[in-house]
Amino acid sequence: MPENSKMVEAITSMDVDFAKWYTDVIKKTELVDYSGVRGCMVMQPYGYAIWENIQKSLDGMFKETGHENVYMPMFIPESLLQKEKDHVEGFAPEVAWVTHGGSEPLAERLCVRPTSETLFCEHYANVIQSYRDLPKLYNQWCSVVRWEKTTRPFLRHTEFLWQEGHTAHATQEEAQEETLRMLNVYADFCETQLAIPVIKGQKTEKEKFAGANATYTIESLMHDGRALQSGTSHNFGDGFAQAFGIQFLDESNELKYAHQTSWGMSTRIIGAIIMVHGDDNGLKLPPNIAPTQLVIIPVAQHKEGVLEKANELKKRLSGDGGRQDAAPTKSIRVKLDDSDKSPGWKYSEHEMRGVPLRLEIGPRDIENNQCVLVRRDTREKIFASLDNIEETIAQTLADIQANMLETARARRDSKTTSATDYADFAKKVENGGFIKAMWCGSVACEEKIKADTTATSRCIPFEQEKLADTCICCDKPAEKLVYWGKAY
Amino acid sequence: MPENSKMVEAITSMDVDFAKWYTDVIKKTELVDYSGVRGCMVMQPYGYAIWENIQKSLDGMFKETGHENVYMPMFIPESLLQKEKDHVEGFAPEVAWVTHGGSEPLAERLCVRPTSETLFCEHYANVIQSYRDLPKLYNQWCSVVRWEKTTRPFLRHTEFLWQEGHTAHATQEEAQEETLRMLNVYADFCETQLAIPVIKGQKTEKEKFAGANATYTIESLMHDGRALQSGTSHNFGDGFAQAFGIQFLDESNELKYAHQTSWGMSTRIIGAIIMVHGDDNGLKLPPNIAPTQLVIIPVAQHKEGVLEKANELKKRLSGDGGRQDAAPTKSIRVKLDDSDKSPGWKYSEHEMRGVPLRLEIGPRDIENNQCVLVRRDTREKIFASLDNIEETIAQTLADIQANMLETARARRDSKTTSATDYADFAKKVENGGFIKAMWCGSVACEEKIKADTTATSRCIPFEQEKLADTCICCDKPAEKLVYWGKAY
Repeated sequence: MPENSKMVEAITSMDVDFAKWYTDVIKKTELVDYSGVRGCMVMQPYGYAIWENIQKSLDGMFKETGHENVYMPMFIPESLLQKEKDHVEGFAPEVAWVTHGGSEPLAERLCVRPTSETLFCEHYANVIQSYRDLPKLYNQWCSVVRWEKTTRPFLRHTEFLWQEGHTAHATQEEAQEETLRMLNVYADFCETQLAIPVIKGQKTEKEKFAGANATYTIESLMHDGRALQSGTSHNFGDGFAQAFGIQFLDESNELKYAHQTSWGMSTRIIGAIIMVHGDDNGLKLPPNIAPTQLVIIPVAQHKEGVLEKANELKKRLSGDGGRQDAAPTKSIRVKLDDSDKSPGWKYSEHEMRGVPLRLEIGPRDIENNQCVLVRRDTREKIFASLDNIEETIAQTLADIQANMLETARARRDSKTTSATDYADFAKKVENGGFIKAMWCGSVACEEKIKADTTATSRCIPFEQEKLADTCICCDKPAEKLVYWGKAY
Repeated sequence: MPENSKMVEAITSMDVDFAKWYTDVIKKTELVDYSGVRGCMVMQPYGYAIWENIQKSLDGMFKETGHENVYMPMFIPESLLQKEKDHVEGFAPEVAWVTHGGSEPLAERLCVRPTSETLFCEHYANVIQSYRDLPKLYNQWCSVVRWEKTTRPFLRHTEFLWQEGHTAHATQEEAQEETLRMLNVYADFCETQLAIPVIKGQKTEKEKFAGANATYTIESLMHDGRALQSGTSHNFGDGFAQAFGIQFLDESNELKYAHQTSWGMSTRIIGAIIMVHGDDNGLKLPPNIAPTQLVIIPVAQHKEGVLEKANELKKRLSGDGGRQDAAPTKSIRVKLDDSDKSPGWKYSEHEMRGVPLRLEIGPRDIENNQCVLVRRDTREKIFASLDNIEETIAQTLADIQANMLETARARRDSKTTSATDYADFAKKVENGGFIKAMWCGSVACEEKIKADTTATSRCIPFEQEKLADTCICCDKPAEKLVYWGKAY
């Protein structure tokens, strides 16, 4: 396909320079544009459409598990941020401060929310009085601001979009149940919708959230062997409740503190989609969240009947009419590319944009009552009858979704190794991937490992193994198996 | 219903004190809570669910008319805000300024967006080069900040949620077509979804948006006779394009400036829903955007079979199973209230929350294969067979929706008067409602009218009439019919 070369030559090969490959893909596929504001991105229509599909899917899962959406102010007064000691220490160094309203200096400066625990706590203190008011299962979709020194599209922005769940419960057991329930929602979402396999586990004390009793995480592995923290869920115990006075009368009329959780997933996950699935031809989007699941490309579209047939197929497949007689099928997100570019150009353009499946239809296909399907994941060509094309495409999209998860899992597993010797460990970190190794539980060893190898503890996985009796870094007895790796 | 009295006594009658009625309704129905941040509200689940339904419906209308969603940064550098002279004069006095990131002072201060014209313009200057890049039909859902001196739930916040559409076109004609298309989308949305009739027209020079060539508006009338600007659509001509250098090569290879529009609707519209439809018993929500369209209240729920039947009805009506054999009906947003409160208490509680329809079912109803439906809009009681209850309820909800629009229109019309004499005009303003009167077109008369009567020009309606030859305020020839009134 010589006509492809011009289109794809601008993408650097991922083996040559992975970081450049990543930004090339993002720029060429128009996911984001840089703005004049330091560290803030413009999410363009294609990038934002991916986020909308993520939102729709995750929001459905939150509602199924009993959560309700709310909206909190974007500003936090300095005195409110300071109420929980660990929390303010964690966030104050990286917040943006509003000091003036119009031309007037403010009596108290406000920070733009870096996360909203303090705002939810203030509200909960107002509305929770009795055990009948519990649990509160709230979530909000918003943007947050953290004053980052270096930024990178999707992975680290000054401002980014996310959702943050904040819940309040009568007991520590319920809070812990919720913390793990939402971690599992994130893990299921990543695996079933994004085709990204994740390791579930707990963060070490060093890596946990500022103010949490325990932080749980899902960790995914990128194509270049680096890990990405993809979602976190925190159990706060009653620490915030004590700081903010969130108390309720329980069933025996005793005054108790509420137990709280929070959990978040951000646009960062789009970086994971790009780096887990993409290749040198560009994006590869899982069908379940692809803005366009199927692109129809007419061949010899100037010939009689071709565009008509392509349009008819689009109607049938997108479920907006066409076959009134037939049983309604699940509608597919279809795009018809009838622009005046050559078919070859269109093939490579939609391939670059990661459209999971393309349908080619020309005069001879129409004669034979068939079309050609080409899968983005395997590049397999399939000749398909037009009679039951809805079912064929629905099934092929399901196959692509399943295959992308399996491929990602196989790659992740092939890049997951174990080490029981420190020199071997360091070498494996250098090569990338997850390295399983035993740990004594001390922050000192985590810090030494980071200094020696740049690896950080990704998580203490729920599925524990015993590789050795002692820590990979010191001679003390091993407490836990830990996943280590270089991370974004 | 004596058990209702305790529930509803906390709502002040609207005839006694409309402003107090309004805040009572908002507090009692838990739409918003005050926050510790000046002028910022917490949107609680019930209030936010109304906004989610508004978003879903409007967003669908935007997409049907070819628009795509994007997300722009929340910060605007001071120098960027200053690029368009009228715009900065309009907004600079009411913006919040970020001056520090962490502990470092910023080299240039940033304002939190009061509206995003400047950010869209900067992006458009980057991505528009050729006529092939036009039109750009973008929208974003976000929050904006305006440093208001006095605030009021939904009507005037320091921070509020909205959508802002920003488009760029090759010609002035296309921009004007878009401006009016979106005004019509807003008007249709208000009438068909919110049951709020609106007057469409143009704003005077005095009232138009800072930086616009022309501003169009939809104006609605509240229960107390005050007007509310409910949505605006602006034609910018090429003024912003010149200030920001948004140029493209047209088909004959000539460099031209783009023509732009913007249009917005905010959470303010929830204030209109409350004040157009509500009564002394609380909210009255139009079925199309009500979070709960139907509440099922079991009577004598401890008796055998009652809760089972109520649950079965809920399943059937919400379309999540129950009658696998039947044709799928449009699903209804149903809530079953099986709490241990008395039926009478529940009736008045859900009435207060504006649920459009309630279904009562008790042992005798079950025996007779029927239920009782009670409409929130007319309080009419309907005995309905359970056989085709899906259709009965769908039809009743449609009737309620239509009746609410007609009732609101009749009230609006009864409060719309004309004046040709200044003393009569002033008296009519005092009484409230829309007052139609002729105007010479001078800002001086607008200002005198405002000073004398507190009325402002609401709009120059598209449907013009000629009531007199001269201006209501001076002796100069009348140019236009204008709707005047006191406004929120």
